[in-house]
Amino acid sequence: MSVITIERKVLEKNDEIASKNRELFKKNKVFTANLVSSPGSGKTSVVEKTLEHFKGKLKISVIEGDVQTNLDAQRVSKYGVPVVQIVTNGSCHLEAKLVQDALQNLKLEDADVLFIENVGNLVCPAAYDLGEDMKVVIASTTEGDDKPLKYPRMFINASVLLINKIDLIPYINCNIEELRKNALQINPKLEIFEVSCTTGDGIDKWCGWLESKIQKK
Amino acid sequence: MSVITIERKVLEKNDEIASKNRELFKKNKVFTANLVSSPGSGKTSVVEKTLEHFKGKLKISVIEGDVQTNLDAQRVSKYGVPVVQIVTNGSCHLEAKLVQDALQNLKLEDADVLFIENVGNLVCPAAYDLGEDMKVVIASTTEGDDKPLKYPRMFINASVLLINKIDLIPYINCNIEELRKNALQINPKLEIFEVSCTTGDGIDKWCGWLESKIQKK
Repeated sequence: MSVITIERKVLEKNDEIASKNRELFKKNKVFTANLVSSPGSGKTSVVEKTLEHFKGKLKISVIEGDVQTNLDAQRVSKYGVPVVQIVTNGSCHLEAKLVQDALQNLKLEDADVLFIENVGNLVCPAAYDLGEDMKVVIASTTEGDDKPLKYPRMFINASVLLINKIDLIPYINCNIEELRKNALQINPKLEIFEVSCTTGDGIDKWCGWLESKIQKK
Repeated sequence: MSVITIERKVLEKNDEIASKNRELFKKNKVFTANLVSSPGSGKTSVVEKTLEHFKGKLKISVIEGDVQTNLDAQRVSKYGVPVVQIVTNGSCHLEAKLVQDALQNLKLEDADVLFIENVGNLVCPAAYDLGEDMKVVIASTTEGDDKPLKYPRMFINASVLLINKIDLIPYINCNIEELRKNALQINPKLEIFEVSCTTGDGIDKWCGWLESKIQKK
């Protein structure tokens, strides 16, 4: 029995549970976004800014995924929304089963939107369907403009790219047009938004687009 | 047969080959550093600055690891040093076998130092010994000060932490003392250097320390 076979079985099992999660989200009319990026690209900050934007308008729940600590859940809980922290204890990505377990602690019937913030890792989470409606990949300008070429699978599997930290452009060596070009070369269907969670720039545009997606569900 | 068992066997096999790599490095008196970080923290920039510093003084070879592209090898080859690119084709970390294969293309007897730049990933490469003398973890200030707590294994397994992009401190929300404190809480033996590959700040200090380590080998 080869390792490849084992990995395939793990992924098959994951896809089965992801389908059950997806049915549950559909039944409860919850739009679900799986947020993926490198560590420190700003996934939690994007969640915070999006929560601020939709305050009083949409009911949002959050699942936080981290290798260790519940620091992100602590940050998000300040916004008064239901949040569950998954600690993977060493594992480099979220799996559908972990999300299924986390859902036991959320009332999906009371939610319009569910954000699942994955472990900070631009490689492994690309392979695991969690049952989400879309993957949102976040790339910060400080990481440089070549990341879509170097880590293509994540950009292929995502529906939308948020280019975060655009406020730092004057101080760094990142060509934003090159970043866009590289991302679209890997996935021509990517929707791209430029945002800054520090200044708030671009957040309204991203949230407007997200709202149109939610209404379609 | 469980997946855990398979993973253990993979790691055992990796450790065997890593030991062979280590013997080879010892025989040829090559000091070897395994550079690990999130994507875009500045591993390649640290290699470039260190190559500039030691130009004409030390003979340095480089192995570059990426999921896709040979962009990093192209950058490093401009410094006129021997460089081999490993493309992992989807895999999220380097393994000892990949390094063993890459060594076929380098003349170790002509090198004082070997830099192995791992795949950008703050989780998985922590588990794989490549036969190196030390792991160098790079954390950029733009990633925030909480990363050692969230991704502890990498910081536990590293000998030195380079805090990169200190030139951006005035523009971002990162408490460098908090970052140091968090890193030392996870690994009290960590040597820590603050550097900027943009301004060159701190590079002399890092290189001085590295040189003292190399001489001891």
